Amino acid sequence: MAVFQETLTLRARGVGLHEFTEQVAGVLGRSGMTRGVVTIFCQHTSASLVIMENADPSARSDLVAWLDRLVPADDPAFEHTLEGPDDMPSHIKMALTRTSESVPFAERKLQLGTWQGIFLWEHRHSPHARTVIVTVLG
Amino acid sequence: MAVFQETLTLRARGVGLHEFTEQVAGVLGRSGMTRGVVTIFCQHTSASLVIMENADPSARSDLVAWLDRLVPADDPAFEHTLEGPDDMPSHIKMALTRTSESVPFAERKLQLGTWQGIFLWEHRHSPHARTVIVTVLG
Amino acid sequence: MAVFQETLTLRARGVGLHEFTEQVAGVLGRSGMTRGVVTIFCQHTSASLVIMENADPSARSDLVAWLDRLVPADDPAFEHTLEGPDDMPSHIKMALTRTSESVPFAERKLQLGTWQGIFLWEHRHSPHARTVIVTVLG
Repeated sequence: MAVFQETLTLRARGVGLHEFTEQVAGVLGRSGMTRGVVTIFCQHTSASLVIMENADPSARSDLVAWLDRLVPADDPAFEHTLEGPDDMPSHIKMALTRTSESVPFAERKLQLGTWQGIFLWEHRHSPHARTVIVTVLG
Repeated sequence: MAVFQETLTLRARGVGLHEFTEQVAGVLGRSGMTRGVVTIFCQHTSASLVIMENADPSARSDLVAWLDRLVPADDPAFEHTLEGPDDMPSHIKMALTRTSESVPFAERKLQLGTWQGIFLWEHRHSPHARTVIVTVLG
Repeated sequence: MAVFQETLTLRARGVGLHEFTEQVAGVLGRSGMTRGVVTIFCQHTSASLVIMENADPSARSDLVAWLDRLVPADDPAFEHTLEGPDDMPSHIKMALTRTSESVPFAERKLQLGTWQGIFLWEHRHSPHARTVIVTVLG
Protein backbone atom coordinates (compact mmCIF):
# COMPACT_ATOMS: atom_id res chain seq x y z
CA MET A 1 0.00 0.00 0.00
CA ALA A 2 1.13 3.50 -0.83
CA VAL A 3 0.28 7.05 0.28
CA PHE A 4 0.11 10.08 -2.01
CA GLN A 5 -0.85 13.50 -0.69
CA GLU A 6 -1.46 16.92 -2.24
CA THR A 7 -2.92 20.20 -0.98
CA LEU A 8 -5.46 21.98 -3.19
CA THR A 9 -6.14 25.70 -2.90
CA LEU A 10 -9.71 26.57 -3.91
CA ARG A 11 -10.80 30.18 -4.46
CA ALA A 12 -14.42 30.45 -3.35
CA ARG A 13 -16.18 33.62 -4.51
CA GLY A 14 -18.69 33.86 -1.69
CA VAL A 15 -21.43 31.65 -0.30
CA GLY A 16 -22.34 28.48 -2.14
CA LEU A 17 -21.17 25.14 -3.52
CA HIS A 18 -17.99 25.07 -5.59
CA GLU A 19 -17.31 21.80 -7.41
CA PHE A 20 -13.75 20.46 -7.40
CA THR A 21 -14.26 16.85 -8.53
CA GLU A 22 -11.81 17.32 -11.41
CA GLN A 23 -9.06 18.54 -9.11
CA VAL A 24 -9.50 15.45 -6.90
CA ALA A 25 -9.42 13.23 -9.99
CA GLY A 26 -6.21 15.01 -10.99
CA VAL A 27 -4.53 14.14 -7.69
CA LEU A 28 -5.67 10.53 -8.11
CA GLY A 29 -4.20 10.44 -11.63
CA ARG A 30 -0.85 11.78 -10.43
CA SER A 31 -0.76 9.15 -7.66
CA GLY A 32 -0.59 6.38 -10.26
CA MET A 33 -2.63 4.11 -7.98
CA THR A 34 -5.25 1.66 -9.22
CA ARG A 35 -7.56 0.83 -6.33
CA GLY A 36 -8.19 2.24 -2.86
CA VAL A 37 -9.68 5.26 -1.13
CA VAL A 38 -9.18 9.00 -1.58
CA THR A 39 -9.72 10.99 1.61
CA ILE A 40 -10.56 14.69 1.34
CA PHE A 41 -10.11 17.05 4.30
CA CYS A 42 -11.24 20.67 4.60
CA GLN A 43 -8.89 22.73 6.82
CA HIS A 44 -11.53 25.29 7.85
CA THR A 45 -14.35 25.72 10.35
CA SER A 46 -16.48 28.14 8.32
CA ALA A 47 -16.39 26.12 5.08
CA SER A 48 -17.15 22.44 4.63
CA LEU A 49 -17.51 19.56 2.18
CA VAL A 50 -20.54 17.89 0.64
CA ILE A 51 -21.03 15.30 -2.09
CA MET A 52 -24.09 16.59 -3.94
CA GLU A 53 -26.01 16.32 -7.19
CA ASN A 54 -23.98 18.09 -9.88
CA ALA A 55 -26.54 18.12 -12.71
CA ASP A 56 -29.21 20.74 -11.96
CA PRO A 57 -27.90 23.99 -10.37
CA SER A 58 -31.30 24.58 -8.73
CA ALA A 59 -30.72 21.57 -6.46
CA ARG A 60 -27.60 23.29 -5.08
CA SER A 61 -29.20 26.73 -4.76
CA ASP A 62 -32.24 25.21 -2.98
CA LEU A 63 -29.88 23.39 -0.59
CA VAL A 64 -27.92 26.55 0.22
CA ALA A 65 -31.10 28.64 0.63
CA TRP A 66 -32.69 26.04 2.91
CA LEU A 67 -29.68 25.99 5.23
CA ASP A 68 -29.66 29.81 5.26
CA ARG A 69 -33.26 29.74 6.49
CA LEU A 70 -32.40 27.12 9.14
CA VAL A 71 -29.40 29.09 10.43
CA PRO A 72 -30.18 32.80 9.99
CA ALA A 73 -27.37 35.33 10.40
CA ASP A 74 -29.27 37.64 12.72
CA ASP A 75 -29.88 35.23 15.60
CA PRO A 76 -29.81 37.42 18.74
CA ALA A 77 -28.77 34.42 20.85
CA PHE A 78 -25.25 34.35 19.37
CA GLU A 79 -22.41 35.63 21.56
CA HIS A 80 -19.61 34.85 19.09
CA THR A 81 -20.16 37.87 16.80
CA LEU A 82 -16.76 39.62 16.73
CA GLU A 83 -15.84 38.21 13.32
CA GLY A 84 -19.08 39.37 11.72
CA PRO A 85 -22.73 38.26 11.60
CA ASP A 86 -22.03 35.41 9.14
CA ASP A 87 -19.23 33.80 11.20
CA MET A 88 -21.20 31.88 13.85
CA PRO A 89 -23.83 30.68 11.31
CA SER A 90 -20.90 29.46 9.18
CA HIS A 91 -19.52 27.34 12.02
CA ILE A 92 -22.97 25.81 12.57
CA LYS A 93 -23.44 25.04 8.86
CA MET A 94 -19.98 23.46 8.80
CA ALA A 95 -20.83 21.25 11.80
CA LEU A 96 -24.07 20.09 10.12
CA THR A 97 -22.26 19.07 6.92
CA ARG A 98 -18.79 17.47 6.56
CA THR A 99 -15.11 18.19 7.20
CA SER A 100 -13.80 14.92 5.75
CA GLU A 101 -14.99 12.50 3.06
CA SER A 102 -13.63 9.13 1.88
CA VAL A 103 -14.29 8.27 -1.77
CA PRO A 104 -13.34 4.86 -3.20
CA PHE A 105 -11.55 4.45 -6.51
CA ALA A 106 -11.01 1.50 -8.86
CA GLU A 107 -9.25 1.21 -12.21
CA ARG A 108 -7.75 4.65 -11.49
CA LYS A 109 -11.21 6.30 -11.37
CA LEU A 110 -13.23 7.84 -8.53
CA GLN A 111 -16.24 5.60 -7.91
CA LEU A 112 -18.76 8.43 -7.61
CA GLY A 113 -22.41 7.81 -8.48
CA THR A 114 -23.76 9.12 -11.78
CA TRP A 115 -24.99 12.40 -10.31
CA GLN A 116 -22.43 12.94 -7.57
CA GLY A 117 -19.89 15.75 -7.51
CA ILE A 118 -17.46 16.77 -4.76
CA PHE A 119 -18.07 20.31 -3.52
CA LEU A 120 -16.51 22.86 -1.21
CA TRP A 121 -19.34 24.63 0.61
CA GLU A 122 -18.28 28.19 1.40
CA HIS A 123 -20.38 29.61 4.23
CA ARG A 124 -18.81 33.10 4.48
CA HIS A 125 -19.94 35.99 2.27
CA SER A 126 -16.51 37.42 1.47
CA PRO A 127 -14.13 35.62 -0.94
CA HIS A 128 -11.72 33.18 0.72
CA ALA A 129 -8.88 30.94 -0.43
CA ARG A 130 -9.63 27.54 1.10
CA THR A 131 -7.23 24.63 1.43
CA VAL A 132 -8.25 21.01 1.08
CA ILE A 133 -5.86 18.09 1.60
CA VAL A 134 -6.32 15.08 -0.67
CA THR A 135 -4.70 11.82 0.43
CA VAL A 136 -4.72 8.75 -1.81
CA LEU A 137 -4.41 5.36 -0.07
CA GLY A 138 -4.10 2.38 -2.41
CA MET B 1 -1.12 -3.02 3.52
CA ALA B 2 -3.78 -4.41 1.27
CA VAL B 3 -6.98 -3.15 -0.37
CA PHE B 4 -10.17 -5.18 -0.82
CA GLN B 5 -13.27 -3.67 -2.42
CA GLU B 6 -16.83 -4.84 -3.05
CA THR B 7 -20.03 -3.17 -4.18
CA LEU B 8 -23.22 -3.93 -2.26
CA THR B 9 -26.68 -3.48 -3.78
CA LEU B 10 -29.28 -2.68 -1.13
CA ARG B 11 -33.00 -2.78 -1.93
CA ALA B 12 -34.67 -0.06 0.13
CA ARG B 13 -38.46 -0.33 0.31
CA GLY B 14 -39.20 3.33 0.85
CA VAL B 15 -38.28 5.95 3.45
CA GLY B 16 -36.38 4.87 6.53
CA LEU B 17 -33.29 3.22 7.96
CA HIS B 18 -32.21 -0.12 6.51
CA GLU B 19 -29.48 -1.93 8.47
CA PHE B 20 -26.69 -3.60 6.50
CA THR B 21 -24.08 -4.20 9.21
CA GLU B 22 -23.98 -7.92 8.38
CA GLN B 23 -23.24 -7.27 4.71
CA VAL B 24 -20.31 -5.01 5.68
CA ALA B 25 -19.04 -7.68 8.09
CA GLY B 26 -19.30 -10.16 5.21
CA VAL B 27 -17.04 -8.06 3.00
CA LEU B 28 -14.57 -7.74 5.87
CA GLY B 29 -14.60 -11.52 6.34
CA ARG B 30 -13.93 -12.15 2.64
CA SER B 31 -11.02 -9.66 2.73
CA GLY B 32 -9.15 -11.92 5.13
CA MET B 33 -7.63 -8.87 6.85
CA THR B 34 -7.01 -8.62 10.57
CA ARG B 35 -6.74 -4.94 11.50
CA GLY B 36 -7.47 -1.66 9.74
CA VAL B 37 -10.37 0.48 8.56
CA VAL B 38 -13.46 -0.29 6.47
CA THR B 39 -14.71 2.70 4.48
CA ILE B 40 -18.32 2.74 3.31
CA PHE B 41 -19.48 5.03 0.52
CA CYS B 42 -23.06 5.71 -0.64
CA GLN B 43 -23.23 6.46 -4.38
CA HIS B 44 -26.44 8.54 -4.16
CA THR B 45 -27.56 12.08 -3.36
CA SER B 46 -31.08 11.23 -2.14
CA ALA B 47 -30.01 8.43 0.21
CA SER B 48 -27.30 8.53 2.85
CA LEU B 49 -25.54 6.65 5.64
CA VAL B 50 -25.85 6.81 9.41
CA ILE B 51 -24.46 4.74 12.27
CA MET B 52 -27.39 4.56 14.67
CA GLU B 53 -28.77 2.64 17.64
CA ASN B 54 -29.92 -0.76 16.37
CA ALA B 55 -31.77 -2.00 19.49
CA ASP B 56 -35.10 -0.15 19.80
CA PRO B 57 -36.92 0.49 16.48
CA SER B 58 -38.65 3.54 18.02
CA ALA B 59 -35.29 5.36 18.14
CA ARG B 60 -35.02 5.00 14.35
CA SER B 61 -38.64 5.95 13.64
CA ASP B 62 -38.36 9.01 15.91
CA LEU B 63 -35.18 10.05 14.08
CA VAL B 64 -36.80 9.70 10.64
CA ALA B 65 -39.98 11.51 11.76
CA TRP B 66 -37.98 14.36 13.31
CA LEU B 67 -36.02 14.96 10.10
CA ASP B 68 -39.29 14.84 8.12
CA ARG B 69 -40.62 17.64 10.30
CA LEU B 70 -37.41 19.66 9.88
CA VAL B 71 -37.41 19.27 6.08
CA PRO B 72 -41.06 19.10 4.94
CA ALA B 73 -41.82 18.04 1.37
CA ASP B 74 -44.20 20.90 0.60
CA ASP B 75 -41.77 23.82 1.07
CA PRO B 76 -42.93 26.46 -1.46
CA ALA B 77 -39.39 27.91 -1.60
CA PHE B 78 -38.03 24.92 -3.55
CA GLU B 79 -37.33 25.42 -7.27
CA HIS B 80 -35.92 21.93 -7.87
CA THR B 81 -39.27 20.10 -8.04
CA LEU B 82 -39.23 18.34 -11.43
CA GLU B 83 -38.32 14.96 -9.92
CA GLY B 84 -41.17 15.07 -7.41
CA PRO B 85 -41.93 16.76 -4.08
CA ASP B 86 -39.69 14.38 -2.09
CA ASP B 87 -36.58 14.89 -4.23
CA MET B 88 -35.25 18.21 -2.92
CA PRO B 89 -36.00 17.30 0.74
CA SER B 90 -34.06 14.06 0.08
CA HIS B 91 -30.99 15.97 -1.07
CA ILE B 92 -31.15 18.17 2.05
CA LYS B 93 -31.52 15.17 4.38
CA MET B 94 -28.57 13.50 2.65
CA ALA B 95 -26.41 16.63 3.11
CA LEU B 96 -27.29 16.75 6.84
CA THR B 97 -26.28 13.11 7.40
CA ARG B 98 -23.38 11.18 5.78
CA THR B 99 -22.16 9.93 2.41
CA SER B 100 -19.05 8.15 3.73
CA GLU B 101 -18.12 6.45 7.00
CA SER B 102 -14.86 4.88 8.22
CA VAL B 103 -15.24 2.03 10.72
CA PRO B 104 -12.18 0.45 12.38
CA PHE B 105 -11.72 -3.31 12.66
CA ALA B 106 -9.47 -5.51 14.78
CA GLU B 107 -9.12 -9.29 15.05
CA ARG B 108 -11.23 -9.49 11.87
CA LYS B 109 -14.22 -7.78 13.55
CA LEU B 110 -15.86 -4.39 13.05
CA GLN B 111 -15.21 -2.30 16.18
CA LEU B 112 -18.73 -0.94 16.48
CA GLY B 113 -20.08 0.08 19.87
CA THR B 114 -22.55 -2.21 21.63
CA TRP B 115 -25.62 -0.44 20.24
CA GLN B 116 -24.29 0.70 16.88
CA GLY B 117 -25.50 -0.56 13.52
CA ILE B 118 -24.65 0.64 10.01
CA PHE B 119 -27.70 1.90 8.12
CA LEU B 120 -28.66 3.07 4.66
CA TRP B 121 -31.07 5.98 5.08
CA GLU B 122 -33.48 6.04 2.15
CA HIS B 123 -35.06 9.47 1.76
CA ARG B 124 -37.27 8.80 -1.30
CA HIS B 125 -40.76 7.32 -0.99
CA SER B 126 -40.57 4.93 -3.94
CA PRO B 127 -38.45 1.74 -3.75
CA HIS B 128 -34.88 2.12 -5.00
CA ALA B 129 -31.89 -0.19 -5.47
CA ARG B 130 -28.98 1.63 -3.84
CA THR B 131 -25.29 0.87 -4.28
CA VAL B 132 -22.74 1.19 -1.51
CA ILE B 133 -19.01 0.58 -2.02
CA VAL B 134 -17.14 -1.08 0.83
CA THR B 135 -13.35 -0.78 0.83
CA VAL B 136 -11.23 -2.63 3.38
CA LEU B 137 -7.79 -1.13 4.13
CA GLY B 138 -5.60 -3.22 6.41
CA MET C 1 1.72 0.76 4.43
CA ALA C 2 1.18 0.08 8.08
CA VAL C 3 -1.73 0.12 10.52
CA PHE C 4 -1.57 1.34 14.13
CA GLN C 5 -4.65 1.38 16.34
CA GLU C 6 -5.43 2.58 19.87
CA THR C 7 -8.60 3.08 21.89
CA LEU C 8 -9.00 6.32 23.83
CA THR C 9 -11.34 6.64 26.81
CA LEU C 10 -12.65 10.17 27.22
CA ARG C 11 -14.47 11.27 30.37
CA ALA C 12 -17.12 13.78 29.34
CA ARG C 13 -18.60 15.78 32.22
CA GLY C 14 -21.97 16.47 30.67
CA VAL C 15 -23.22 18.21 27.52
CA GLY C 16 -20.74 20.04 25.34
CA LEU C 17 -17.58 19.88 23.27
CA HIS C 18 -14.51 18.19 24.79
CA GLU C 19 -11.27 18.66 22.87
CA PHE C 20 -8.98 15.64 22.49
CA THR C 21 -6.65 16.78 19.68
CA GLU C 22 -3.60 16.14 21.87
CA GLN C 23 -4.62 12.54 22.55
CA VAL C 24 -4.99 11.90 18.80
CA ALA C 25 -1.56 13.49 18.20
CA GLY C 26 -0.20 11.19 20.90
CA VAL C 27 -1.45 8.09 19.08
CA LEU C 28 0.06 9.40 15.85
CA GLY C 29 3.40 9.96 17.61
CA ARG C 30 3.42 6.41 19.02
CA SER C 31 2.67 5.00 15.54
CA GLY C 32 6.01 6.30 14.26
CA MET C 33 4.45 6.96 10.84
CA THR C 34 5.35 9.92 8.67
CA ARG C 35 2.53 10.47 6.18
CA GLY C 36 -1.02 9.18 5.80
CA VAL C 37 -4.45 9.46 7.36
CA VAL C 38 -5.70 9.13 10.95
CA THR C 39 -9.27 7.89 11.20
CA ILE C 40 -11.24 8.61 14.37
CA PHE C 41 -14.37 6.64 15.27
CA CYS C 42 -16.85 7.33 18.07
CA GLN C 43 -18.41 4.11 19.42
CA HIS C 44 -21.62 5.76 20.65
CA THR C 45 -25.00 6.88 19.33
CA SER C 46 -25.64 9.66 21.86
CA ALA C 47 -22.23 11.31 21.49
CA SER C 48 -20.47 12.33 18.28
CA LEU C 49 -17.43 13.99 16.74
CA VAL C 50 -16.87 17.43 15.27
CA ILE C 51 -13.81 19.33 14.08
CA MET C 52 -14.50 22.86 15.31
CA GLU C 53 -12.84 26.19 16.06
CA ASN C 54 -10.72 25.76 19.20
CA ALA C 55 -9.84 29.39 19.89
CA ASP C 56 -12.90 31.22 21.27
CA PRO C 57 -15.02 29.16 23.71
CA SER C 58 -18.11 31.24 22.79
CA ALA C 59 -18.08 29.69 19.30
CA ARG C 60 -18.49 26.25 20.90
CA SER C 61 -21.12 27.32 23.41
CA ASP C 62 -23.14 29.08 20.67
CA LEU C 63 -22.95 25.90 18.56
CA VAL C 64 -24.16 23.70 21.41
CA ALA C 65 -26.94 26.13 22.37
CA TRP C 66 -28.13 26.43 18.76
CA LEU C 67 -28.43 22.65 18.39
CA ASP C 68 -30.28 22.49 21.72
CA ARG C 69 -32.83 24.94 20.34
CA LEU C 70 -33.16 22.95 17.10
CA VAL C 71 -33.66 19.63 18.94
CA PRO C 72 -35.47 20.40 22.21
CA ALA C 73 -35.69 17.69 24.85
CA ASP C 74 -39.42 18.05 25.48
CA ASP C 75 -40.69 17.18 22.00
CA PRO C 76 -44.05 15.43 22.58
CA ALA C 77 -43.68 13.57 19.27
CA PHE C 78 -40.92 11.31 20.63
CA GLU C 79 -41.85 7.71 21.44
CA HIS C 80 -38.32 6.61 22.44
CA THR C 81 -38.34 8.14 25.94
CA LEU C 82 -37.57 5.20 28.26
CA GLU C 83 -33.91 6.20 28.66
CA GLY C 84 -34.78 9.77 29.66
CA PRO C 85 -35.85 13.00 27.93
CA ASP C 86 -32.33 13.76 26.63
CA ASP C 87 -31.78 10.36 24.97
CA MET C 88 -33.74 10.76 21.72
CA PRO C 89 -32.49 14.35 21.17
CA SER C 90 -28.96 12.97 21.66
CA HIS C 91 -29.43 10.40 18.88
CA ILE C 92 -30.70 13.12 16.55
CA LYS C 93 -27.79 15.46 17.36
CA MET C 94 -25.38 12.59 16.78
CA ALA C 95 -26.94 11.84 13.36
CA LEU C 96 -26.63 15.53 12.35
CA THR C 97 -22.92 15.65 13.23
CA ARG C 98 -20.26 12.91 12.75
CA THR C 99 -19.39 9.41 13.92
CA SER C 100 -16.11 9.14 11.96
CA GLU C 101 -13.51 11.62 10.74
CA SER C 102 -10.39 11.18 8.59
CA VAL C 103 -7.56 13.63 9.27
CA PRO C 104 -4.42 13.68 7.08
CA PHE C 105 -0.93 13.84 8.55
CA ALA C 106 2.49 14.68 7.09
CA GLU C 107 5.95 14.90 8.66
CA ARG C 108 4.44 13.11 11.69
CA LYS C 109 1.96 15.98 12.33
CA LEU C 110 -1.82 16.19 12.03
CA GLN C 111 -2.61 18.55 9.13
CA LEU C 112 -5.36 20.46 10.92
CA GLY C 113 -6.11 24.05 9.95
CA THR C 114 -4.91 26.86 12.20
CA TRP C 115 -8.15 27.06 14.19
CA GLN C 116 -9.25 23.43 14.05
CA GLY C 117 -9.48 21.11 17.03
CA ILE C 118 -10.89 17.58 17.29
CA PHE C 119 -13.80 17.36 19.73
CA LEU C 120 -16.02 14.76 21.32
CA TRP C 121 -19.53 16.17 21.43
CA GLU C 122 -21.35 14.76 24.45
CA HIS C 123 -25.11 15.06 24.04
CA ARG C 124 -26.24 13.47 27.35
CA HIS C 125 -26.52 15.46 30.56
CA SER C 126 -25.03 12.88 32.91
CA PRO C 127 -21.27 12.14 32.88
CA HIS C 128 -20.22 9.29 30.57
CA ALA C 129 -16.97 7.54 29.73
CA ARG C 130 -16.82 7.51 25.94
CA THR C 131 -14.53 5.38 23.77
CA VAL C 132 -13.02 6.56 20.54
CA ILE C 133 -10.88 4.34 18.29
CA VAL C 134 -7.96 6.01 16.51
CA THR C 135 -6.45 4.16 13.55
CA VAL C 136 -3.32 5.44 11.81
CA LEU C 137 -2.84 4.39 8.17
CA GLY C 138 0.45 5.42 6.60
